Amino acid sequence: MSLTDFIGAVAGMLTTISFIPQVVKIWRTRSARDISYGMYTCFIGGVGLWLCYGLLIGALPIILNNAIVLVLAILVIFFKYKVEKR
Amino acid sequence: MSLTDFIGAVAGMLTTISFIPQVVKIWRTRSARDISYGMYTCFIGGVGLWLCYGLLIGALPIILNNAIVLVLAILVIFFKYKVEKR
Repeated sequence: MSLTDFIGAVAGMLTTISFIPQVVKIWRTRSARDISYGMYTCFIGGVGLWLCYGLLIGALPIILNNAIVLVLAILVIFFKYKVEKR
Repeated sequence: MSLTDFIGAVAGMLTTISFIPQVVKIWRTRSARDISYGMYTCFIGGVGLWLCYGLLIGALPIILNNAIVLVLAILVIFFKYKVEKR
């Protein structure tokens, strides 16, 4: 693995796992008022298309990273909906 | 431009602009308590590395999208800091 590939791999890992603390924070505080529905709606659409793109070109890193981010972003918006519905 | 390239371009555009409504929301409401510092710290690191990766392989779409996301993500964390410091 070249240094460039390594940088790409770490970049993908960081942007992917970054959503975990946000999911945990909403779960713990039971509050998500400041989270933008607009952001996550648009973001989920984009990540869904990234996943399609990865599948079309057969690029496993794109498929895996975006599949995980998709799940985490859906969790953010789902938790927001749940805590605000109460 | 093939359909695959088009899907990739729309995917990149959506994930990039998705941060705009979040920046606007914090600016308008002057509140960002539910936004996770952990998420944005990790995310900014990842996007910074994506930018390095794009520069190293000379991929303009990766460079442009990540440069814009980097600015928007820094704005989110900067606004959060500003509104919570008051």
